[in-house]
Amino acid sequence: MTEQTRRVIVDTDTAGDDTQALLLAAASERLDVEGITICAGNVEFEHQVENAKYTLDLAGVADDVTVYEGATEPLLATHDYADYIHGEGGLGGERFPDTGIPSGDQYGPDFIVEQARANPGELTLVCIAPLTNVALALQKEPKLGDLLDDVWVMGGNANCCGNVTPAAEYNFWVDPHAAKMVVDELDMTLFDWGVTVRETAFDGDTLDEFTAGIDTDLGEFFGEVATSVRAFNRESFGEDTTTQPDSGMMAAVIEPSLVVEAGRYHVEVDDRDGLTRGYSVVDENDVTDGEPRTTVVESFDNARFEAMFRAMLRGRSPESALD
Amino acid sequence: MTEQTRRVIVDTDTAGDDTQALLLAAASERLDVEGITICAGNVEFEHQVENAKYTLDLAGVADDVTVYEGATEPLLATHDYADYIHGEGGLGGERFPDTGIPSGDQYGPDFIVEQARANPGELTLVCIAPLTNVALALQKEPKLGDLLDDVWVMGGNANCCGNVTPAAEYNFWVDPHAAKMVVDELDMTLFDWGVTVRETAFDGDTLDEFTAGIDTDLGEFFGEVATSVRAFNRESFGEDTTTQPDSGMMAAVIEPSLVVEAGRYHVEVDDRDGLTRGYSVVDENDVTDGEPRTTVVESFDNARFEAMFRAMLRGRSPESALD
Amino acid sequence: MTEQTRRVIVDTDTAGDDTQALLLAAASERLDVEGITICAGNVEFEHQVENAKYTLDLAGVADDVTVYEGATEPLLATHDYADYIHGEGGLGGERFPDTGIPSGDQYGPDFIVEQARANPGELTLVCIAPLTNVALALQKEPKLGDLLDDVWVMGGNANCCGNVTPAAEYNFWVDPHAAKMVVDELDMTLFDWGVTVRETAFDGDTLDEFTAGIDTDLGEFFGEVATSVRAFNRESFGEDTTTQPDSGMMAAVIEPSLVVEAGRYHVEVDDRDGLTRGYSVVDENDVTDGEPRTTVVESFDNARFEAMFRAMLRGRSPESALD
Amino acid sequence: MTEQTRRVIVDTDTAGDDTQALLLAAASERLDVEGITICAGNVEFEHQVENAKYTLDLAGVADDVTVYEGATEPLLATHDYADYIHGEGGLGGERFPDTGIPSGDQYGPDFIVEQARANPGELTLVCIAPLTNVALALQKEPKLGDLLDDVWVMGGNANCCGNVTPAAEYNFWVDPHAAKMVVDELDMTLFDWGVTVRETAFDGDTLDEFTAGIDTDLGEFFGEVATSVRAFNRESFGEDTTTQPDSGMMAAVIEPSLVVEAGRYHVEVDDRDGLTRGYSVVDENDVTDGEPRTTVVESFDNARFEAMFRAMLRGRSPESALD
Ligand SMILES: [Ca+2]
Ligand SMILES: [Ca+2]
Ligand SMILES: [Ca+2]
Ligand SMILES: [Ca+2]
Repeated sequence: MTEQTRRVIVDTDTAGDDTQALLLAAASERLDVEGITICAGNVEFEHQVENAKYTLDLAGVADDVTVYEGATEPLLATHDYADYIHGEGGLGGERFPDTGIPSGDQYGPDFIVEQARANPGELTLVCIAPLTNVALALQKEPKLGDLLDDVWVMGGNANCCGNVTPAAEYNFWVDPHAAKMVVDELDMTLFDWGVTVRETAFDGDTLDEFTAGIDTDLGEFFGEVATSVRAFNRESFGEDTTTQPDSGMMAAVIEPSLVVEAGRYHVEVDDRDGLTRGYSVVDENDVTDGEPRTTVVESFDNARFEAMFRAMLRGRSPESALD
Repeated sequence: MTEQTRRVIVDTDTAGDDTQALLLAAASERLDVEGITICAGNVEFEHQVENAKYTLDLAGVADDVTVYEGATEPLLATHDYADYIHGEGGLGGERFPDTGIPSGDQYGPDFIVEQARANPGELTLVCIAPLTNVALALQKEPKLGDLLDDVWVMGGNANCCGNVTPAAEYNFWVDPHAAKMVVDELDMTLFDWGVTVRETAFDGDTLDEFTAGIDTDLGEFFGEVATSVRAFNRESFGEDTTTQPDSGMMAAVIEPSLVVEAGRYHVEVDDRDGLTRGYSVVDENDVTDGEPRTTVVESFDNARFEAMFRAMLRGRSPESALD
Repeated sequence: MTEQTRRVIVDTDTAGDDTQALLLAAASERLDVEGITICAGNVEFEHQVENAKYTLDLAGVADDVTVYEGATEPLLATHDYADYIHGEGGLGGERFPDTGIPSGDQYGPDFIVEQARANPGELTLVCIAPLTNVALALQKEPKLGDLLDDVWVMGGNANCCGNVTPAAEYNFWVDPHAAKMVVDELDMTLFDWGVTVRETAFDGDTLDEFTAGIDTDLGEFFGEVATSVRAFNRESFGEDTTTQPDSGMMAAVIEPSLVVEAGRYHVEVDDRDGLTRGYSVVDENDVTDGEPRTTVVESFDNARFEAMFRAMLRGRSPESALD
Repeated sequence: MTEQTRRVIVDTDTAGDDTQALLLAAASERLDVEGITICAGNVEFEHQVENAKYTLDLAGVADDVTVYEGATEPLLATHDYADYIHGEGGLGGERFPDTGIPSGDQYGPDFIVEQARANPGELTLVCIAPLTNVALALQKEPKLGDLLDDVWVMGGNANCCGNVTPAAEYNFWVDPHAAKMVVDELDMTLFDWGVTVRETAFDGDTLDEFTAGIDTDLGEFFGEVATSVRAFNRESFGEDTTTQPDSGMMAAVIEPSLVVEAGRYHVEVDDRDGLTRGYSVVDENDVTDGEPRTTVVESFDNARFEAMFRAMLRGRSPESALD
């Protein structure tokens, strides 16, 4: 169904599950990936750039999809990496790619602005990183929202405990000013940490299958990437599990019916330093005056997501698992 | 069981469910109510004072239990009443008591301090209001925590949506500075808005029984008090229900086994103005350095609570329903 | 002139210049000191209590003037002493008094409230410490402003650099919440750090005269107290000088014509933590909507103040120098 | 003296005194103006762009100097214009230019980055607007400080009353986040509101001479621009005066010896919303741990500045007045 192809730009801090999201996007015939922009986040910037290129190469699309380097720091907040989860390089182990593939010659936010202006109403922005690049694009082009077809954001924690602090999820916490700008200005679908925990987890059996039982390069790659997170979760929470925030959302971009339930709420991000840095107020009960313009995913079809993921690892398109 | 009698001071902003908490306390032979302190909260201060006296009178204990007037304003925050929920006077309807019963001649916080000093290790503080009085007692007597036997607090919202704002529950929101002081300094059991919503609700059938089917003064009183809240919930959330934060917790003070599950966590209250005023950080996953010293009630025995409540309305001791 | 006698309560964190303010008050026939209340501030609380008693004893009024112990901590802020300026005990040297004089049996804020209620319109509150005690009195008696005749406060920095931080003066910084409450609620005369620096300084010659050239117990006492501050200023700012915030203001309470110029402005204190903790916004150009109700001393008669101080050190009444 | 020519980019929110700063720059043979970038500030963005072009045209340099449009909004803060001072269009009266001159085809911050990269160590950035453009340039090119020769910023209020609020000066207030970023990252000379008020004022006689007694286009233009500010000051402060923040600083860029005294201090900008939005902490007494890297102009040669200004109005180079 060519007419259904969705043209996407993926903004990513490529480490851990970002790689799997890129692999899903690359493997899907429903998406055309117009470019990848890299944003300060999980691990050292240069590692992120290389991780993205390496992943695209593994997916066989490195010639078609260019990686653009964006913001190397949050707008204002001090930056903390998440390498204690993803490993120093972000791929969980000893893999520190050095691909030699050149980056695009535009600044990430400039690429987003230029593409949006050149293709009004055509592009979907898939944001699986802190929102610095998107905020800078928005600052440069205040009409960005009108120029885009759709925006999906992994971030925030809707009335549930965060991951990096009790009050906040990592992406929003890293650059709370950017998150506030973007959530204030753009209509979006939000895939938060709550739905991630509740509905994207792979259990031990699935992890065993995916990391050992699939004899492909992608299976091996996932095995390496997942091992670090799996160990972290086992140690921190006593649960043999990984969660898939970025690839979970990417699967929903490919197949929106994975979103079983969603509510449209007013959302506001706290950009102040301190206790609630990056906290996302989600007005579930409509008690504030704020306009409800964020679609918050509340329930997600984990079973079909897992099938799509398995298909991708086996070298097939994720949507092939949906029939 | 004289040796099991628990001596309590109840700090209350008497309106709505506060009255039922006082009735449970008065009707229980397991509690000796040493005094009632009134704190700025739900409705106009003078109404709260009269509501408390009226309730004690209805319970037949007005001669034994004195009402002490405390803080008429939060420490620093601007004060908003909750009379849109409880009705202007706080009793849901046209009842504006004027009992003529004199108040105690001590300032509420001073009464708490004096009693705690006079009875070291003997008293339980049951807090079902904003925490201004308790904070002032703590300011006057920094060793208050050591002098008390136990502290129970209704307030906060543990990783769930608040009631007065998405980020905050009413008691903590009204005086966030007091809440912060008290939560920082005192070991306590916290009965939050989350467990209130999940496990203290009376459904329509129960409300019908309690408000119409119990032919006692207390049944009639509950009927009046509940009607306003019930209508508010029906209109706001489309649910025919009332929640019982204060009386739910009081039942647990009487019968601690109503607490089915609880976790001991570090809790911190946000006392800043703005988006997260009164927000309670509850570090469920132990990711902060904070000492876990607050016992957060996570699951509660609603069925036995309902039975205790029914017994009280019928003029019996709440614990008589437990056999 | 009996009819001119002003009845004062002095709220003090007795260390350094607080002692000289107490000596001026005690030596003046124009003031009746009704009581001293001690507030958390400069040095360890117990030292402050003893310093006050010792000073009153030195002035020969320890039998007439009672010291009441108040707040031992700020309301909410973390407490930092200023003993790096005043010496560990607060008297600059090796003097750690242990007078054996009993404290009054009331909590400082309660004494203020009781006296104000018992003598409506009669009392002047002279505040030369962080404002915790006054805030607590105000919380207990919201009509405190109406009950007092006058309020003088040493604190804040009116559009000039602070002392403890560039943004704040020590008294307001120590308890910014209290300072905000008190400045919001009470009409007052404010003697800020700016006028202190500009117009209360004693230069090297004066200090030499006062510390060595006056052969009285008071002269010797001043010598000891001043030495520490003088050394601090010499080292920190390269200036051989001491400033007299507390005794400067006390002199103006005794002789209001020492205030040469003053403006009535809206003042607001920043009680947030961080960069501007304790900052005092003084709306000199009337650009905000705030009501101008604080009289800010802008210029002060240093020469006559010095004469009053000299008279006091020599054992005479300070006002005797005014003829 | 060709070797002394300083190559500058001027970042401006062209209204009022910005025009005179541009005229000084254009008239000086000591400066080469490489480009003008426009930043959200004083008046509606389109007016600012036209005002700049009109001013350059008046100075006869419109063909040589391009105007680049930058940020149309502050990074995060809500934007308030200052048109109540400068008149709706920013030129004080009925002049609403519509020059037809095209803008440069680069985004202002991109122009700054590109020029800085292309001419490392060559350029001076003269900032007489809110700092949004500079912050965006810095975000895109974190090494901006190393790439520039010098940075001069008009903004902040060093331990004195602000203009837009008691705590803040307009440029820092409009975009406090940008101001914080830029002050944190770049070494600079700061020309604040305090020195502006103390030492750049033109009195009534000078204003009469400049606005009526100089029969040139520039004299007439200044007359119009100054009239609005002069009336505002007469009405608001009862003083017949105008201050020259932007042209004052530009004169010092041309002739640095106009800076009579300056101190090197640690400066930090408050980017929080509320009472102290845009407040600049200037650590005059070196009491914080912050590194002193901002040169704050403390005293300025008003007489020579006035002479330079007069020369410019008369159609001569400003430096011609210095001989
Ligand atoms: Ca990511
Ligand atoms: Ca209550
Ligand atoms: Ca003092
Ligand atoms: Ca300007």
